[in-house]
Amino acid sequence: MADALKIGIAGLGTVGASLVRILQDRHEMLATTCGRAIETTAVTARDRNRDRGVDLSKTAWFDDAISLARDADIDVFVELMGGAGDPAYSAVKAALQRGIHVVTANKALLAAHGIELAKIAEEKGALLNYEAAVAGGIPVIKALRESMTGNTISRVYGIMNGTCNYILTKMEKEQLSFEACLKEAQRLGYAEADPAFDIEGNDTAHKLSILTSLAFGTAIAADDIYLEGITNISIDDIHAAADLGYRIKLLGVAQRTESGIEQRVHPTMVPYDSVIAQVDGVTNAVAIESDILGELLMVGPGAGGNATASAVLGDIADIAKSRPGAQHVPAFGRPTNALLPYKRAQIQSHEGGYFIRLKVVDRTGVFASIATRMADNGISLESIMQHSKHLMDTGEPQTIILVTHATSEHSVRDAIKAIKGEGYLVGEPQVIRIERPKAN
Amino acid sequence: MADALKIGIAGLGTVGASLVRILQDRHEMLATTCGRAIETTAVTARDRNRDRGVDLSKTAWFDDAISLARDADIDVFVELMGGAGDPAYSAVKAALQRGIHVVTANKALLAAHGIELAKIAEEKGALLNYEAAVAGGIPVIKALRESMTGNTISRVYGIMNGTCNYILTKMEKEQLSFEACLKEAQRLGYAEADPAFDIEGNDTAHKLSILTSLAFGTAIAADDIYLEGITNISIDDIHAAADLGYRIKLLGVAQRTESGIEQRVHPTMVPYDSVIAQVDGVTNAVAIESDILGELLMVGPGAGGNATASAVLGDIADIAKSRPGAQHVPAFGRPTNALLPYKRAQIQSHEGGYFIRLKVVDRTGVFASIATRMADNGISLESIMQHSKHLMDTGEPQTIILVTHATSEHSVRDAIKAIKGEGYLVGEPQVIRIERPKAN
Repeated sequence: MADALKIGIAGLGTVGASLVRILQDRHEMLATTCGRAIETTAVTARDRNRDRGVDLSKTAWFDDAISLARDADIDVFVELMGGAGDPAYSAVKAALQRGIHVVTANKALLAAHGIELAKIAEEKGALLNYEAAVAGGIPVIKALRESMTGNTISRVYGIMNGTCNYILTKMEKEQLSFEACLKEAQRLGYAEADPAFDIEGNDTAHKLSILTSLAFGTAIAADDIYLEGITNISIDDIHAAADLGYRIKLLGVAQRTESGIEQRVHPTMVPYDSVIAQVDGVTNAVAIESDILGELLMVGPGAGGNATASAVLGDIADIAKSRPGAQHVPAFGRPTNALLPYKRAQIQSHEGGYFIRLKVVDRTGVFASIATRMADNGISLESIMQHSKHLMDTGEPQTIILVTHATSEHSVRDAIKAIKGEGYLVGEPQVIRIERPKAN
Repeated sequence: MADALKIGIAGLGTVGASLVRILQDRHEMLATTCGRAIETTAVTARDRNRDRGVDLSKTAWFDDAISLARDADIDVFVELMGGAGDPAYSAVKAALQRGIHVVTANKALLAAHGIELAKIAEEKGALLNYEAAVAGGIPVIKALRESMTGNTISRVYGIMNGTCNYILTKMEKEQLSFEACLKEAQRLGYAEADPAFDIEGNDTAHKLSILTSLAFGTAIAADDIYLEGITNISIDDIHAAADLGYRIKLLGVAQRTESGIEQRVHPTMVPYDSVIAQVDGVTNAVAIESDILGELLMVGPGAGGNATASAVLGDIADIAKSRPGAQHVPAFGRPTNALLPYKRAQIQSHEGGYFIRLKVVDRTGVFASIATRMADNGISLESIMQHSKHLMDTGEPQTIILVTHATSEHSVRDAIKAIKGEGYLVGEPQVIRIERPKAN
């Protein structure tokens, strides 16, 4: 049997502690599977004295991640601290510069510095593995980087934030408001005290930027993402979606278009009988559409100490099974000098169906006026209807729901601007994009 | 850049021809991704003169697969002929004995000889990759063999035969009989002229036996599988399932139980709102339940020239990215001498819910008698009802549907035997097992 693989772990939170425990409990099983033992030889964390329920007595302790990465006697540096900046950034860089393999679950770091780090890894013959950074336990990085080699990807999209999916699912199933569901998510630990990063879509955007690079062979462009969170979604939208045969999900979508790569994160209506519509609660799902394989959808746990530790362990095991300097696995699927520049497609050019919910004053001719304004902008309507809750002639504002056939974001915005000019709108219109799986 | 990877392909049917075309068309792209070119240097097929729409003028032709495997100047032998016996078996063996890596899509071969071939691969330091053998384009082999390293698997199950899923989907959606849908499947090329191998469940069983070995670390036991096909499923069963909130799918299920590993292939009711219930048509799906990662479900094309070629190409690319002798990837997840013997759990001990459809003569006391016989055998009922089509007192036989809570196969069989003794049954009862995803 080959020499043991020595790993150093930076960060002993939920994921790090799970990982150390699994590596201890399954030492023999892992040695059999990998052909060599995996030993945790060095660790660092914020608090040395906290009881994590794991035995670290034979493990070297480092006071900070950068010195662990620089000085520890390790083959693999496992970064589980999080954050785009230091110490994670400098520590990962230091490890790669020594030619030490890196396994990380840090999406923010990769979104900000992924290509730079990949370049160093390449130069030093080290592996940079990050399965846990996107959609937790779902092996989507491996699918894109390895299984789908040779495929041309046309679209990758998914539910990549468990907090948002939990809230949207709960709103629908229990007829509760966004605020009530957010509170429940916080109580259960699914949402942070400051939930903005999740519910505004930033977390999904970080993950999407990594998938975009892998799928399209482009440089990471995490700042070039159209972003819309779920704070604006009301129970009325969810009802209207259900009436029309849709469910609302926060999707991250990256798509090849004629004008470039479109990256967008926004609430999306998906057909009720599509597989992804049935993905509930904190579960994640990622779909990849390609020219050879076709459509692949993977559903699984997107977060949690164990699921994330499982993905990290898979990355470590891949290294354990390889031999030093033995593999050519560019971090983003191709050598960094072969990555294309990212060319942003403007969201204005997005072609697809739209759901539009308008509140209007109750007067004759409003339907005709709305339909005319849509037609003026070349928008073909699938349906236009008064919402069922407001069928009585009460003189109160009425809710009108439009569903369009495929059209451009640009046309929709122009049409809404024209409708606003008519003077019968009450408040802001709600616009939700419709996304259809290829197979549906 | 490293030397080109030289591959020899045996079998130029739909998959083989797709593969040759892709390797030619995407030569540069693959070289960039893999760090070396991939060259088709030798081929063999039944008919040398058939036009396959690919240029083979620079490729060595061999008249048979075994001499190609023995004599060709290749690094990888790609076996796409199919069949458990020769020439596939001897050719793969010959290649491995030369220490040449093998990529195969041949589930029958692996089900019959997988462990023997894995042992030779191990001894010679060759890789034996077979992603395409199970569920076509879905990377389930990679997920089990690599991503889930360290996990203990409790159950793996899935829809692994597109023909059966197409028929069951069409029966439900278009209210057609089994026979009509089978004919349509044959017309579309989804079913063979002799469809028995698919519709009786054998194809699913081959694939399941491979997943069982990978999931549980046991020797392959393809003959130790409880087998029940879909020929017995009527439109009445599909209606009754829908009324109760279920859909019927042909599942292959392998499950760890106290008495051993249970392997079974049979029509199964899955909850309508589960993700797997929404997998329609020829699409496949595989779910893996494990202790660290949790539940992972993958959905994608299970067959077709391109999807299968994509999986084969992924396997070839993995070899191209590695360097000779550089990896430790035992074919079935652990070295063959570490595989456990397969210990069969009898289907009699299967614990789960059951759907039972009985035709009975219309007389007072039948409900009570049935309920009593079930209770006698310790079976707790979720529901017992007359089927909605037969509410009138016509004197004709009535249909009664039972749904049980979790119980053993043994108890169900005993209860049915007792009911048969009562003399009011007409024809044979229909029994369909209910399977629930862990998350539901």
